[in-house]
Amino acid sequence: MSKLSHIDADNRPTMVDVSHKKETVREAHAQAIVRLPGDIVQHISGDEIGTKKGPVFATAIIAGVMAAKKTHELIPFCHPVGLDDCKITISVDGNDAIIDCCCKVVHKTGVEMEALTGASVAALTIYDMLKAMSHDIVISETRLMAKSGGKQDFYRGQS
Amino acid sequence: MSKLSHIDADNRPTMVDVSHKKETVREAHAQAIVRLPGDIVQHISGDEIGTKKGPVFATAIIAGVMAAKKTHELIPFCHPVGLDDCKITISVDGNDAIIDCCCKVVHKTGVEMEALTGASVAALTIYDMLKAMSHDIVISETRLMAKSGGKQDFYRGQS
Amino acid sequence: MSKLSHIDADNRPTMVDVSHKKETVREAHAQAIVRLPGDIVQHISGDEIGTKKGPVFATAIIAGVMAAKKTHELIPFCHPVGLDDCKITISVDGNDAIIDCCCKVVHKTGVEMEALTGASVAALTIYDMLKAMSHDIVISETRLMAKSGGKQDFYRGQS
Amino acid sequence: MSKLSHIDADNRPTMVDVSHKKETVREAHAQAIVRLPGDIVQHISGDEIGTKKGPVFATAIIAGVMAAKKTHELIPFCHPVGLDDCKITISVDGNDAIIDCCCKVVHKTGVEMEALTGASVAALTIYDMLKAMSHDIVISETRLMAKSGGKQDFYRGQS
Amino acid sequence: MSKLSHIDADNRPTMVDVSHKKETVREAHAQAIVRLPGDIVQHISGDEIGTKKGPVFATAIIAGVMAAKKTHELIPFCHPVGLDDCKITISVDGNDAIIDCCCKVVHKTGVEMEALTGASVAALTIYDMLKAMSHDIVISETRLMAKSGGKQDFYRGQS
Amino acid sequence: MSKLSHIDADNRPTMVDVSHKKETVREAHAQAIVRLPGDIVQHISGDEIGTKKGPVFATAIIAGVMAAKKTHELIPFCHPVGLDDCKITISVDGNDAIIDCCCKVVHKTGVEMEALTGASVAALTIYDMLKAMSHDIVISETRLMAKSGGKQDFYRGQS
Repeated sequence: MSKLSHIDADNRPTMVDVSHKKETVREAHAQAIVRLPGDIVQHISGDEIGTKKGPVFATAIIAGVMAAKKTHELIPFCHPVGLDDCKITISVDGNDAIIDCCCKVVHKTGVEMEALTGASVAALTIYDMLKAMSHDIVISETRLMAKSGGKQDFYRGQS
Repeated sequence: MSKLSHIDADNRPTMVDVSHKKETVREAHAQAIVRLPGDIVQHISGDEIGTKKGPVFATAIIAGVMAAKKTHELIPFCHPVGLDDCKITISVDGNDAIIDCCCKVVHKTGVEMEALTGASVAALTIYDMLKAMSHDIVISETRLMAKSGGKQDFYRGQS
Repeated sequence: MSKLSHIDADNRPTMVDVSHKKETVREAHAQAIVRLPGDIVQHISGDEIGTKKGPVFATAIIAGVMAAKKTHELIPFCHPVGLDDCKITISVDGNDAIIDCCCKVVHKTGVEMEALTGASVAALTIYDMLKAMSHDIVISETRLMAKSGGKQDFYRGQS
Repeated sequence: MSKLSHIDADNRPTMVDVSHKKETVREAHAQAIVRLPGDIVQHISGDEIGTKKGPVFATAIIAGVMAAKKTHELIPFCHPVGLDDCKITISVDGNDAIIDCCCKVVHKTGVEMEALTGASVAALTIYDMLKAMSHDIVISETRLMAKSGGKQDFYRGQS
Repeated sequence: MSKLSHIDADNRPTMVDVSHKKETVREAHAQAIVRLPGDIVQHISGDEIGTKKGPVFATAIIAGVMAAKKTHELIPFCHPVGLDDCKITISVDGNDAIIDCCCKVVHKTGVEMEALTGASVAALTIYDMLKAMSHDIVISETRLMAKSGGKQDFYRGQS
Repeated sequence: MSKLSHIDADNRPTMVDVSHKKETVREAHAQAIVRLPGDIVQHISGDEIGTKKGPVFATAIIAGVMAAKKTHELIPFCHPVGLDDCKITISVDGNDAIIDCCCKVVHKTGVEMEALTGASVAALTIYDMLKAMSHDIVISETRLMAKSGGKQDFYRGQS
């Protein structure tokens, strides 16, 4: 399994050396979808989540940005890269709250994990803020949508 | 929206006061599923992930447990409750790596967010360890399976 | 200077042993005042800070609560005590944004530093959110208003 | 309120993208003043705080520098910029302990919040170290004194 | 290797469940020894380290206590237990700086790792403070001296 | 003691300004040795530690790398420098588990403390994973082996 850059020749987990790489603009966009049960959606439609300006989503955005900055503390072999930008937006589509997290930095390695971590923690925060109303909230998809600036760009066509 | 315990009368986000509550044994079980693309599954079947003993899953378990301990640093209004136990197990079923995270503490409030955070960060770590092979790895479901010890127990029937 | 419990007989800084103390309900209330220059107050009066519901104050509340939970990481000899509650409210009085932070826990030692830290970081966050408009924002008073549950209660009469 | 760079078009809190900015030497100087009640000043004048070498101030300096390094973990939309230098000095003037915190980095964005956070946490630490003697210690002024290296330098004339 | 409580039946690392255990007073004493090269000892004998009051040792004490509070963030399967006390003292014996770290808590599990972590980070801090003078500083022994309050007390006779 | 760059003219602890220094490739190699009692060595020789692939060493490697990334949070006057690489390997020689930690970054200051911190926390983690079998585990030597890229390279001949 030589492609696994995080496993060394002795089958031990390991960091990847990026010291020789050139700095480029790295961008990554990740998405997480929170599936809300019908009664929450109904209950809140004309209100805070409906207007998309209230404290549930603001809290999730703040928690997600702060978590993106902590990615290298959470994911063992992630490099600490700083962040030049981390934008999280949340929109509602039917029963789904859709979280988009876009990270950017000028560095030797990418911010894919930062974008995924920011989206995940924003999703967990929405769960936490709403869990008094239902436990049937599911984070149904967390995935990379696009990345650029590294060896190979990635772009996921919308399914 | 009076049911939202994390929003106060002024529509501001807020913590919930648990000082008056009695300590009980609180348990929570969360699950996250990582959907692996076919070529990763095929490539690794007779190897490390196949044997379930190798460093990818061990790394994910360690990262998940360490993140569960940090839950109150990530989720703005979570109480710091400590943890008497946090067990993460990972099994493979077809294309899915299934992460189960069970948390336990004797405290005034539950560990639902701890179990969800532990499962989420273990899933993100699997993604990070395997992403050199494919970016089409999706964390497809993150959800609470069961909780007990609070006002009302919750148990999700397997779908 | 024998009253300085954080200095030992060798003039070294030191933690205070609280292992023998009884757990009681500990509460503390701290206040920080952010003095805003006239043009910020004027500019924003009919808007977000005016309505007291917008993202500046929500962001400050979230940052303050998260910092209160980190108090023992910031103040060298503070005990890690957890928090059963941390409520931050922000009101505007003339040119002042007044931050009140109330912390509560059942523990052997108090949460005075937690309340002061939560108020301080909420004040710093207001500064950060508004500093694009002016650098003449001053955090003019940070102080304890009341505490109870320890050897001696404290209550500051309003000046 | 278009001047608020931390609020986006949807009235949500947001980080500012600095990826396109040039790195320059950024410096910031913040000050916090701790007003000590007369009996503390009297009590300690010929002693440790009097000599300015003892553990109260050394502890505050260490806590302040460590907090300055954590600024981006405390203030939600602060960029993680590292720090090339953080110097904290403390002097006594009458009843006031005056904390000066100077931060420096070569980066795309400034260290104003780092200087303010370092000064604030040093002030909170002085409070903590002395609170066994009195609760009437007030952090009376926390403010930016000067900054340079960004779009516009700032220098506060002494009041 | 059934005695390894941190390895589960599948040979995966795991936390130990302590939820059923009774709280008792737990104490642990660890020691780390920093061996200083002759020229440092000679250079500093009549000075700060000689007087044992100066900033090198004070800084090490503060760093060690703060690290002891972070033990569960550093050691993957350590429980977060809080700390009722953490006392670090440093003495000089010939070429050795001897660091003693004593931790105490009333909890279900012990503070052995907290004491060892506090002593280790105090030792690393002494190294950092003195490394401009020599790189031949060695942390020569880090070990548990005594623990009590658990299933079995431990006491190491001085060798 | 003018050589102590971390002590200022007032005998206060202080950070060193590195803003004017040029970025170079900085490398450091530190080693920590864990002396295991005979019965542990005997017990595990044909097993997990014997095969060097099992969870004790993998856990120690992960904990050590994560701690190296946190060095500036633990050591008061260490600069936050990021890390381009951190490789930890563990080998067994008789009764000794030998931990080598190599760190690399392109920065203005070195990663000596990062390498020492990574090795120390890996050693503490081995202790934690094995302590159910014996408390007579000693971390017998923690020291710098080599560093390069700064004013003066250092290389320790093997003793």
